[in-house]
Amino acid sequence: MVKIAILGLGVVGTGVAEVLAQNAEKVSSSAADEIVLKYVLDIRDCSGSPFADLVVPDFDRILADPEIRVVVETIGGVGAAYDFTKRALEAGKSVVTSNKELVAAHGYELLTIAKEQNANYLFEASVGGGIPILRPISQCLAANEITEIYGIVNGTTNYILTEVAKGVPFETALKDAQALGYAEQDPTADIEGHDACRKICILGSLAFGQHIYPSQVPTEGISKITPEDMLYANSVGRKIKLLGRALRTDSGKIAVYVAPHLIHTSALLAHIDGVCNGIDVRGNALGDVLFYGPGAGKLPTASAVVADVIDCAKHLHARKYLAWSKGGPDIASDPGTLPSRWYVRTPKGGDKAFGPVEHLSCEGQNPDHIAFLTGPISQQDLAPKLAAANACCAFRLLD
Amino acid sequence: MVKIAILGLGVVGTGVAEVLAQNAEKVSSSAADEIVLKYVLDIRDCSGSPFADLVVPDFDRILADPEIRVVVETIGGVGAAYDFTKRALEAGKSVVTSNKELVAAHGYELLTIAKEQNANYLFEASVGGGIPILRPISQCLAANEITEIYGIVNGTTNYILTEVAKGVPFETALKDAQALGYAEQDPTADIEGHDACRKICILGSLAFGQHIYPSQVPTEGISKITPEDMLYANSVGRKIKLLGRALRTDSGKIAVYVAPHLIHTSALLAHIDGVCNGIDVRGNALGDVLFYGPGAGKLPTASAVVADVIDCAKHLHARKYLAWSKGGPDIASDPGTLPSRWYVRTPKGGDKAFGPVEHLSCEGQNPDHIAFLTGPISQQDLAPKLAAANACCAFRLLD
Repeated sequence: MVKIAILGLGVVGTGVAEVLAQNAEKVSSSAADEIVLKYVLDIRDCSGSPFADLVVPDFDRILADPEIRVVVETIGGVGAAYDFTKRALEAGKSVVTSNKELVAAHGYELLTIAKEQNANYLFEASVGGGIPILRPISQCLAANEITEIYGIVNGTTNYILTEVAKGVPFETALKDAQALGYAEQDPTADIEGHDACRKICILGSLAFGQHIYPSQVPTEGISKITPEDMLYANSVGRKIKLLGRALRTDSGKIAVYVAPHLIHTSALLAHIDGVCNGIDVRGNALGDVLFYGPGAGKLPTASAVVADVIDCAKHLHARKYLAWSKGGPDIASDPGTLPSRWYVRTPKGGDKAFGPVEHLSCEGQNPDHIAFLTGPISQQDLAPKLAAANACCAFRLLD
Repeated sequence: MVKIAILGLGVVGTGVAEVLAQNAEKVSSSAADEIVLKYVLDIRDCSGSPFADLVVPDFDRILADPEIRVVVETIGGVGAAYDFTKRALEAGKSVVTSNKELVAAHGYELLTIAKEQNANYLFEASVGGGIPILRPISQCLAANEITEIYGIVNGTTNYILTEVAKGVPFETALKDAQALGYAEQDPTADIEGHDACRKICILGSLAFGQHIYPSQVPTEGISKITPEDMLYANSVGRKIKLLGRALRTDSGKIAVYVAPHLIHTSALLAHIDGVCNGIDVRGNALGDVLFYGPGAGKLPTASAVVADVIDCAKHLHARKYLAWSKGGPDIASDPGTLPSRWYVRTPKGGDKAFGPVEHLSCEGQNPDHIAFLTGPISQQDLAPKLAAANACCAFRLLD
């Protein structure tokens, strides 16, 4: 029997308790042991919860209980979550989380403590919700040098972009996303790409073995994308999606960024709509594989957390796969030097500075604007041309 | 240092040796140990191969060498491959393979021997080529009751269907597939669905924990699909794809079959073209996740084999995840009882027996035929109507 505690009875924490209860038989069979939820840490009134009997208000009681071998951190953020995770690992307890902000900020430190204590720190649910992605990267692709990883890693913005592409105004799509529970009341972290940034940091750190910090990742959100841009994109068989992308450059360094891209409909990613996520991993032997599924949601996320709990229960005295080194400024390459073709929209006459371009047209286009596709050019070289043309927006083409 | 042997220096065997050599650093780092290829078993003249120095002609030498801890079986078929695998496992050596025919036929027996000997029998590459699928099913989805698994699991037929949909005649598409190395000289196993049948047997066995044998799986290939059927499908926003499908029915039994399906383009599977594979797994907590990538090919398949070799090297004295029970006739439910909507093409006037149907039309349609979509009906109940109407073909709609 392996006893566990859940820290924080919010949406994901409640989902974890529910999956443990509902799928108890499958969970025990997978773990080859019974997994018992002993405590739930929360300081709010949880009297309405079916798990109210398990609620304790202070972490020290969980920390001091030697029966607790695995702690599930579903608090979020980098405050109490960081403190409790660190202390649990230092006490030799394994920790499982869906907290991408904490892993992106302190993953190297926490993984190092876990290693020292022969405990595990697992966070499959921190990227792609219920989609298996971190474990496949480290285990199934173990024979590959990974050259690139990119994808739709934020369900909220993908939902909004999908709705806007149908003709729904941005503000309405955002309000719908909030009403459906996809977006927070303050949607900044999603809309401005910060959430996607944290996730591509985790994916890149694992794929390339060096901690990539959010501060190293140029991040652009979706607020500049208009319905007109989507129509222009459609006119050349493309969709606009927000991607996180990490790749090894010719110099051996790693370029990481978050930005909208125009993706051709011949690529599967272009067809990933709504709150779903899709992540493409490219290996030197394998080529491209893509992982698709629900990128968020209570039960999908909880199911990934519980899979990690099962893995911890099976490896109470053995280290699992996750590890990367400290990173640092010298590993990062400026993505501004990466050449690609670009979609550009400018006031009329703004195309002159860009050399030969492919002009676009769409139904109901603003007569004062023009839109076109450039040839391959780096962002650095593009920037002065965009400034000279007083450009409205510029988005990369994915291949 | 872990020493291994490859049985059979064909396409996949050569690929395994190449990946081990080319990605030696990554492989050693992933395994936390050096993996050394000591022998290659082949009885043909391999003097032109870069691995010629390692070739031995008799299996007994490999079997008798206590240094060999992992054996890679890339012989194929159920003859020597079965014999050698059994003897290697009985000798306590772990075995890794891409041989779907052997796993589908004898997986339970071989997994049982592996368990008795505390060795591993791993076969990630047997389904979906380089796509991580078996490990995610058993590890990442460990907290889920899997309710259904289905997908495009044969790259050759998917290539042919993709070409035929572009207007290429079937025979030309088949010849191209052979020229490109996708199809065998005798393409029966692909075209008639036998290869897909073996793969859905393996997926279903793992997902539901009971060995499903190919003889339990009604299997229909792609030879009845015409370009006209594809045009009719297009007219209602659908594509025709060959799917393997395994699901738990209300009775708790498992229904498994292989057949062409009309898939709506709102589903990602409809956009999987060429030799690629895509597999959808449905869990009770997770919902649907999809795994996509190269379903065949020397290096992708080899990269999955080498990932399994790494896993064996890391678990020389521990059992890995793969296991299922013996199965038997009482676990199988007749897929003929599963209701679905159907696409039917008959000679003119053949729609009368089917009740209210949705008639289809397409460009250049044969004036002597009609095509329509039925309401939900089981295959058993459909069969007499098809016979009465002298129907040309009938394919299920996926949802």
